[in-house]
Amino acid sequence: MIIVLQTDLAEAQVLHVCQTLNELGLTSQVVLTSHHKLVVVLDDTSSYATHVFSRIDGVDKVMRVQSQCPLALTSNQLGLPFANGSIVGGGKGPVVIAGPCSVEGRLQLVELACQVKTAGAHLLRGGAFKPRTSPYDFRGLGLEALKYLKEASEITGLPVVSEVMSPQQIEISEPFIDMFQIGARNMYNYELLKEVGRTRKPILLKRALSATIAELLQSAEYILLEGNQQVVLCERGIRTFETHTRNTLDLSAVAALKTMTQLPVLVDPSHGTGRPELIRPMSRAAIACGADGLLIEVHNEPSKALSDGSQAITPDVLKEVVAEVNTIFQALNPVNSNLHFQPAGSIPEPAKV
Amino acid sequence: MIIVLQTDLAEAQVLHVCQTLNELGLTSQVVLTSHHKLVVVLDDTSSYATHVFSRIDGVDKVMRVQSQCPLALTSNQLGLPFANGSIVGGGKGPVVIAGPCSVEGRLQLVELACQVKTAGAHLLRGGAFKPRTSPYDFRGLGLEALKYLKEASEITGLPVVSEVMSPQQIEISEPFIDMFQIGARNMYNYELLKEVGRTRKPILLKRALSATIAELLQSAEYILLEGNQQVVLCERGIRTFETHTRNTLDLSAVAALKTMTQLPVLVDPSHGTGRPELIRPMSRAAIACGADGLLIEVHNEPSKALSDGSQAITPDVLKEVVAEVNTIFQALNPVNSNLHFQPAGSIPEPAKV
Amino acid sequence: MIIVLQTDLAEAQVLHVCQTLNELGLTSQVVLTSHHKLVVVLDDTSSYATHVFSRIDGVDKVMRVQSQCPLALTSNQLGLPFANGSIVGGGKGPVVIAGPCSVEGRLQLVELACQVKTAGAHLLRGGAFKPRTSPYDFRGLGLEALKYLKEASEITGLPVVSEVMSPQQIEISEPFIDMFQIGARNMYNYELLKEVGRTRKPILLKRALSATIAELLQSAEYILLEGNQQVVLCERGIRTFETHTRNTLDLSAVAALKTMTQLPVLVDPSHGTGRPELIRPMSRAAIACGADGLLIEVHNEPSKALSDGSQAITPDVLKEVVAEVNTIFQALNPVNSNLHFQPAGSIPEPAKV
Amino acid sequence: MIIVLQTDLAEAQVLHVCQTLNELGLTSQVVLTSHHKLVVVLDDTSSYATHVFSRIDGVDKVMRVQSQCPLALTSNQLGLPFANGSIVGGGKGPVVIAGPCSVEGRLQLVELACQVKTAGAHLLRGGAFKPRTSPYDFRGLGLEALKYLKEASEITGLPVVSEVMSPQQIEISEPFIDMFQIGARNMYNYELLKEVGRTRKPILLKRALSATIAELLQSAEYILLEGNQQVVLCERGIRTFETHTRNTLDLSAVAALKTMTQLPVLVDPSHGTGRPELIRPMSRAAIACGADGLLIEVHNEPSKALSDGSQAITPDVLKEVVAEVNTIFQALNPVNSNLHFQPAGSIPEPAKV
Repeated sequence: MIIVLQTDLAEAQVLHVCQTLNELGLTSQVVLTSHHKLVVVLDDTSSYATHVFSRIDGVDKVMRVQSQCPLALTSNQLGLPFANGSIVGGGKGPVVIAGPCSVEGRLQLVELACQVKTAGAHLLRGGAFKPRTSPYDFRGLGLEALKYLKEASEITGLPVVSEVMSPQQIEISEPFIDMFQIGARNMYNYELLKEVGRTRKPILLKRALSATIAELLQSAEYILLEGNQQVVLCERGIRTFETHTRNTLDLSAVAALKTMTQLPVLVDPSHGTGRPELIRPMSRAAIACGADGLLIEVHNEPSKALSDGSQAITPDVLKEVVAEVNTIFQALNPVNSNLHFQPAGSIPEPAKV
Repeated sequence: MIIVLQTDLAEAQVLHVCQTLNELGLTSQVVLTSHHKLVVVLDDTSSYATHVFSRIDGVDKVMRVQSQCPLALTSNQLGLPFANGSIVGGGKGPVVIAGPCSVEGRLQLVELACQVKTAGAHLLRGGAFKPRTSPYDFRGLGLEALKYLKEASEITGLPVVSEVMSPQQIEISEPFIDMFQIGARNMYNYELLKEVGRTRKPILLKRALSATIAELLQSAEYILLEGNQQVVLCERGIRTFETHTRNTLDLSAVAALKTMTQLPVLVDPSHGTGRPELIRPMSRAAIACGADGLLIEVHNEPSKALSDGSQAITPDVLKEVVAEVNTIFQALNPVNSNLHFQPAGSIPEPAKV
Repeated sequence: MIIVLQTDLAEAQVLHVCQTLNELGLTSQVVLTSHHKLVVVLDDTSSYATHVFSRIDGVDKVMRVQSQCPLALTSNQLGLPFANGSIVGGGKGPVVIAGPCSVEGRLQLVELACQVKTAGAHLLRGGAFKPRTSPYDFRGLGLEALKYLKEASEITGLPVVSEVMSPQQIEISEPFIDMFQIGARNMYNYELLKEVGRTRKPILLKRALSATIAELLQSAEYILLEGNQQVVLCERGIRTFETHTRNTLDLSAVAALKTMTQLPVLVDPSHGTGRPELIRPMSRAAIACGADGLLIEVHNEPSKALSDGSQAITPDVLKEVVAEVNTIFQALNPVNSNLHFQPAGSIPEPAKV
Repeated sequence: MIIVLQTDLAEAQVLHVCQTLNELGLTSQVVLTSHHKLVVVLDDTSSYATHVFSRIDGVDKVMRVQSQCPLALTSNQLGLPFANGSIVGGGKGPVVIAGPCSVEGRLQLVELACQVKTAGAHLLRGGAFKPRTSPYDFRGLGLEALKYLKEASEITGLPVVSEVMSPQQIEISEPFIDMFQIGARNMYNYELLKEVGRTRKPILLKRALSATIAELLQSAEYILLEGNQQVVLCERGIRTFETHTRNTLDLSAVAALKTMTQLPVLVDPSHGTGRPELIRPMSRAAIACGADGLLIEVHNEPSKALSDGSQAITPDVLKEVVAEVNTIFQALNPVNSNLHFQPAGSIPEPAKV
């Protein structure tokens, strides 16, 4: 922590600042430059709020040097393996998680699960509990949906990801699903983060639409601190002034995260753009800039989807997306590119997940 | 709902769009302009998602005409009275809710409650459960804090507002507090909104830092739909590119909300600016543009606050804020300005709240 | 400038950083904390770009301590007097600059100038050269408009403000107007800033819709550096995700600027909100938070205005705005509030401006 | 244009709205839905401002249907050929424009030009006139720089792109350069757009950091309207709340533009991210989502660059960028991928450009 003092501060007052730090158990060093008087705190201040320093008399401003998410920055997560052989992260190639926004019925889900499997997806997504901006919109089938997801998973061999929004939903969902999703609206819901941190299932943590990269990592830190190392980050668009797209997909955040942490990073081009015609190009871009995979909303008849139908693509388009992102990954990683891809196109025997 | 068709659409295809609408039970009318073919849906579409229309073959884009938060726009809430005679909203003059970010101890809280009472506050705020961006920060005293809040309320006569973040916290808090606060991080937490909507206590609903005005109203709609009419909106800054202030306090949203709804609107200049020196001018501006009151963080020794100390003001500054906003309100409302202000400066007998 | 070194840097490399600084003619001091190695540059680095330091081998990041706009922060401008006795800034009370977005004709302008004078305005604004987002929109009458402005000024005694967008327009406008306006679109047009800095007329500098407070001050610095001290800053809304208002009027920037600089600060609620029904409340808020005045678009028949008619108010509404902001200013400054207000309501003899 | 009337409007008032439209020479049709009264204007309203309609008595709001940049949307620009055989746009593969932010000297520029040529660049960029946020920064060598650019172009055969900021700079630059760049700060400088629109050289138009996609197209429209069809758009990052990156590179805008217009679209990852370590991944992503090329800042010794050194890459890194984006383009376009790439690696005979 570096403390910049007010420019006209007398020596006695400078000493008083150091003394105040001393009372907090902190040692410090004064540095005088041509224009400023600085006090550098020499001890670990990662657990101190900045106002402890900024509100001391005579302080002009305070600059933090230390990071506040040490676990997220040093996590040693080298790929997160699933029962069906898919690996999320670790440079193992693009993992595709696909499925409907909401589970709308048994037939719909099982049919779609088979189709996304055939199209090349590695995991199945589907909402059982839906947060919706308008209270008049469809809000999910709940437990019924979880049973269908489990059944679809057994038929296709695809592990299942589904969103949870409360401790109760975690408990209900746990027997049915393989990965908990924390949605963008709950990235700042720290109680919920701690709860999923106490489970031993992988967590897909989506960036809030107003969250900085640093805040996303701090939310991951909440989960990691509870002992759950299986955190996967997901960029899904931030809110900006641009209205042509639903959000602004921040792919430079993906590239930046890959230089900062070893946690896997996925991209959700469906929410990121809100426009079906942009899913293909932005999926390609995501993999090209280093994302470990994609989270894509797929529906058989988007116009009849009960939620988010405006951005869903069909299984046919998904097939093209998978082909294109594999092409890019292999072109950029000629040797090890197909290490983990199981042959798509055939539905395997039901597997115990 | 107005449907703009692709420009080159043949007549048969136009008819097909109308037929599709018909199958949805909707009547429509085709309008041909010099440059476009439009289909206007004549029935109520407030409960239809836009993609039901945008994904029909031949549709270029869709424009919604009807609002999605009818209750919030027509709510007839003319001032929300509290046991101590304070009235939030209804043009009854500035209500000031003040107190520490977090309840840190019995002595701290009771002393501060007395001081904010003396300074002229009408309700007491204090966090029992704290959401914190960094997991290493202080996260509240929980039940203990609630008991102190109740005690401080009995001593000062000030009703108590405190934030809840889960159904469980609602249940624990209910006997101790007079108003539930939904924090900015939970404005999109629809499960929680429904839960507080089922209680019969007033709700202070804070705008999320990335929420549009329309989304704030939709979140209010969730609460209103459950039958709880006592919703108070609160502007507390939105996230923009400006970094000098913690957030950008959007006072035009306040002025706009006052033209759209009768729900009371408060302003939180503490979170809105994150800078103590801006609390006074922005409090004045809030009341001048029509806000019904203020939510202000106060601390005796801001440098020693366990949370958000960088933005707290002292009780002395609060006194000046109260004086200034009353001056402005009275200057703008010469006749009825002191209808609801009880004399500040003396601590009344403990009241049963 | 504080240089944070990479954590694992050997002593020899630390020395190499200091040596590199030495070659740049800079002395420095190494400070070792429990977690970091810092190098503090002791000399004046206000004229050094940060990359000079950040790209040295072994450097992790760089934190600037010194400001880059010394003149703007220390300017001693205590109120800017105009020929008609109006004073902009210096705490002398709200100055109102009003007039049409564009000068549309002689009759229109003179009539409107008389009306805004009667309504209590202190200066007249009117666009001769109009920047327009759509190339199909009306773009101003040019020289003809300037002549009408001069005439209206002589009739009403109101000094005239008008926007210039090129060196050529500065030259053409100079004989006709009393204050140059640099529009939001040109705040980053440094060539133009230098040009107006070389004139000796007051400059109204509007904040760009994407500019931080620091950047606004840096643009002012360009003008001040050329020797022109008569700079007036103007907040006119920044671009955010909110679409209900045309921009987000950032009044906390006004309050913040008043703590940072003595340059006068005006507010333009017309562009700031883009909605006529918000002009009154936001004008009140602007003065309440410390703005030195207002810049307001007025039109006789807004629906027939050739530009920006959607946000103009009528002279009648302006009258109410003036009354309200004077009421607020006087209530907050009981003694000296009417120091500079000349009686409104009568049109004086033509004055030589 | 669709006009939504106030809900309680009497029939006579509805007729009055239609009559007002009639006086403007516009025919209209009333449509009554279950909740609203609409008036659809049947004639071409692309040249009408919305306030002409929104300020008519009884009007609630107005929705525009027609586009305001017809030329940009229908431009038929199929690749922009340069003297050295490079083609910008038309799906001809990634074009790389590279060079220093500022021209700093003859030796520096010629050496760098040779190096970017060898690394595979197709055009040379270099600033002669520099807009700088801080007035204390280096602002370019002017005419001297233009001469060096011309010389470097003759030696390497690379056509030259350089920024102009005033009509005077256009005139000075014209004999020396092959393409005018309009910088982000001048995207809204309509006078300048018209000036370059009157030249017959290609224009590189950069998106302002606060511009929507629609506004970028409207700025292009200004140039196209003057008869210059050779417009190339460039995404270079928008301003958002994220501070880790200098700006937020909006690649979905690139993908969106490719569905809206045939004008070529480039990406500037240097300004877009402001971080050298992100140039490679974001260059790959840009080409993967459909960009026609890249604009990259290159410097021999970034720590000694006189401007923007914090984001420049070295010629060695540029080589890798070129290789990677070609790999991606060829993988995605197996047949025609090397149509226009001339062999890199050897410096050709000086060519008359």
